[in-house]
Amino acid sequence: MKPDISIISLFSARERLLRREFSAVELTEAYLGQIERLNQAINAFITPTPELARRGALEADALLMARPSGRELSALMGMPVALKDIFDTAGIRTTAGSKFFADRIPAEDAQAVLKLKRSGAVVLGKTNTHEIALGVTGVNPHYGAVKNPWDLSRVTGGSSSGSAAAVAAGMCLAALGTDTGGSIRIPASLCGVVGLKPTYGRVSTRGVLPLSWNLDHVGPLTRTVRDAAVMLAALAGFDPLDPASADIPVGEYLVHLEDGVRGWRVALAAGTYVEASDPQVMAGVAEAARVFTDLGAQVEKVDMSWLAELALANGRMTQADGAAFHRERLAERPGWFGADVRQRLETGAALTSGEYALARRTQAEGRRRFETFFEEFDVLLLPTTPIPAPPIEGTRAIEAARRLTRFTAPFNLAGLPALSVPCGFTGEKLPIGLQVISTHWGEAKVLQAGLAFEQATSWHNRRPDI
Amino acid sequence: MKPDISIISLFSARERLLRREFSAVELTEAYLGQIERLNQAINAFITPTPELARRGALEADALLMARPSGRELSALMGMPVALKDIFDTAGIRTTAGSKFFADRIPAEDAQAVLKLKRSGAVVLGKTNTHEIALGVTGVNPHYGAVKNPWDLSRVTGGSSSGSAAAVAAGMCLAALGTDTGGSIRIPASLCGVVGLKPTYGRVSTRGVLPLSWNLDHVGPLTRTVRDAAVMLAALAGFDPLDPASADIPVGEYLVHLEDGVRGWRVALAAGTYVEASDPQVMAGVAEAARVFTDLGAQVEKVDMSWLAELALANGRMTQADGAAFHRERLAERPGWFGADVRQRLETGAALTSGEYALARRTQAEGRRRFETFFEEFDVLLLPTTPIPAPPIEGTRAIEAARRLTRFTAPFNLAGLPALSVPCGFTGEKLPIGLQVISTHWGEAKVLQAGLAFEQATSWHNRRPDI
Repeated sequence: MKPDISIISLFSARERLLRREFSAVELTEAYLGQIERLNQAINAFITPTPELARRGALEADALLMARPSGRELSALMGMPVALKDIFDTAGIRTTAGSKFFADRIPAEDAQAVLKLKRSGAVVLGKTNTHEIALGVTGVNPHYGAVKNPWDLSRVTGGSSSGSAAAVAAGMCLAALGTDTGGSIRIPASLCGVVGLKPTYGRVSTRGVLPLSWNLDHVGPLTRTVRDAAVMLAALAGFDPLDPASADIPVGEYLVHLEDGVRGWRVALAAGTYVEASDPQVMAGVAEAARVFTDLGAQVEKVDMSWLAELALANGRMTQADGAAFHRERLAERPGWFGADVRQRLETGAALTSGEYALARRTQAEGRRRFETFFEEFDVLLLPTTPIPAPPIEGTRAIEAARRLTRFTAPFNLAGLPALSVPCGFTGEKLPIGLQVISTHWGEAKVLQAGLAFEQATSWHNRRPDI
Repeated sequence: MKPDISIISLFSARERLLRREFSAVELTEAYLGQIERLNQAINAFITPTPELARRGALEADALLMARPSGRELSALMGMPVALKDIFDTAGIRTTAGSKFFADRIPAEDAQAVLKLKRSGAVVLGKTNTHEIALGVTGVNPHYGAVKNPWDLSRVTGGSSSGSAAAVAAGMCLAALGTDTGGSIRIPASLCGVVGLKPTYGRVSTRGVLPLSWNLDHVGPLTRTVRDAAVMLAALAGFDPLDPASADIPVGEYLVHLEDGVRGWRVALAAGTYVEASDPQVMAGVAEAARVFTDLGAQVEKVDMSWLAELALANGRMTQADGAAFHRERLAERPGWFGADVRQRLETGAALTSGEYALARRTQAEGRRRFETFFEEFDVLLLPTTPIPAPPIEGTRAIEAARRLTRFTAPFNLAGLPALSVPCGFTGEKLPIGLQVISTHWGEAKVLQAGLAFEQATSWHNRRPDI
């Protein structure tokens, strides 16, 4: 049987693979075919890796043959995934969407890639990204703009643009992204898929080109919340060689996944900072909040205008850290950066240590404020982005980023787990994303809330007509 | 019986108080007398608070009378202590050694002060400090230089200068200090007393004038290691209103205090960075290491030259954070700062965000490196300072600070617990300090090691002849 990749989830693909409805090679070929068919239009992949994928699929099939029970098999055995082209891949070029790294071929896999491979994942290729992950439109001056599968004239959001587009267009089952100010959640929201930014330090960033050592997060983009939980379970863990990695026990992300939100205290973000959003987005999130009420949660509106300061500090710290990391490139070949990225790096380089110190203080205060906040609430609901996907033409990268990161960046600064799940569509059939946030190490909670919402709705089942 | 304050420790004072060998009022009067007798020469106190002290002592005696058993009494009941004048004290001026705050009278006690008071401590007064705690000589242009009780022509070290001098000269039983680059341990070392910098986040800094939000630590200065443990037990705890405070269970600092170091793996710092110290200091620390061997520990020399980079990053971060906190004062009345402090703040203000970002990365990497280091070793031994107390005349504050903080500053950056204990004297009868460091939240270990060393030696019993 040919896998129907237009509707399949990672979870169901595994079930069917174990039932031998298809082989890992057949599954992988189906995705490679979809990439072949769609990548020219969508530009999701910078470097497809069909040979690597076929080799991985053959190995998976061999293992499946050898161990018929399936129970002992790794969680991602034979599952075709895509990797944002900012994760080092041994022997495969890793451009970070940058001219500087156009020919860079790392010797080793990033730790997150290694973990996926060890879980049996099949690597389909490396996905396009906003240049050096510093921006959220996905319009890359070196590797082209990624097109939103729901409307090819629209941006995907970014910086994990290709990863989101590939999941949305059925060009992979799941993908890796990184998120420094919203770079997983924004494209997930704009492309109608699920995106999870775990707690800071939960997933190793070793072997990922740094943007900010203090704000970078690795996480999955998937079709369903359950798939995000499966991916997180494969990715999570302490890495002593990553100074940002935390030696905190990994949660049981799948155990209570279906337990629902009955009796939960749910905060719904309100106040002028939040409400200055597209009315269709606000309506979608308000409707999502009603779903939580129907599911037995106590939903309470809370003024979250204090997020503004955190978003600002996150932007400053990202620019300063990015400028520090890229200082030699910026000094030696500034013209190799695209205009928007160069402008951000120059802004970052011009910041004083005092501005940095104050942003850092805002970070410490914000973290503490959220710790107190989440003593009162289980989760916080917020739009992922205040607007749906803007057009590629005419959208100015820096202004768009300021708008698009308003609701995501505060949770990078505070290091909190945050999930984006589809929660509706605009009149123009553009996806709307609901963001679910919880306290540090509360990934299981955001996933549990996300799944409850997903099971009560059907937004995740809609696919773009391409 | 009149208390013999020249030899008494906090621990023995409590025992004798409970046995009614003297009253809290008699004890307090003895210290007030000593302050009266010596403060003009030593300049340890900016503001003695004899009325407050007498009131506290009377209350303690009343409580002692009411509850004859003593067992239920708070740990510091009736114990006369001094507070660095950077801790807010309700109704008592708190200068921070600065002209800006010469007349500042806080409305509330700092959290650490409140904790000491709740434990029954009697407050003798506010001690002199290097201006805004940004410097380590204790030569204050507004409130005068603090004189080293062992040699009045020498500095005490700083910035908790008056606190160390007061403990050394028997003008209090114990004192509070703060430590951003060595400001508890350096004066403890130079004045021949015990100084403990706990883990970052262990003791609340709320109500302490910030120098660096990221490197400031509160801790005790005492005559003995046991006294430091008693003080820490009173001070330690989570404070949700201090963003730097950590919600980590408080250790049992007194339970295993006397268990010794048999079988411990002890690292003795070596390498050019360490060995470029005064030969008498090196000899004192080498002899201390032999004591650890005699006590049954396995002592191994380890090259610690990598501390250099951490010390440098700590200095930069301190200056940048300090400049950020004092930015308005620096802009409006730069001349109100002393020359050395102003120079440091101006250096800090001129640092770029990139320099800050790189120092912060060094911090993250250093923390992780130490976590690995302390998987192999129980404690690290190192001189507290590379030189004994330099002369007041002719010592240049900034150069002296660079030398004096070499071995202390790395542990502020990494946030590790570090204890300074007396370990000998130079030919000029100036004290030498041994520093004992352990892993995060390992206060019990540094205290246990410190006590074992103290009990095997008699350096802490020597008192200056004043």
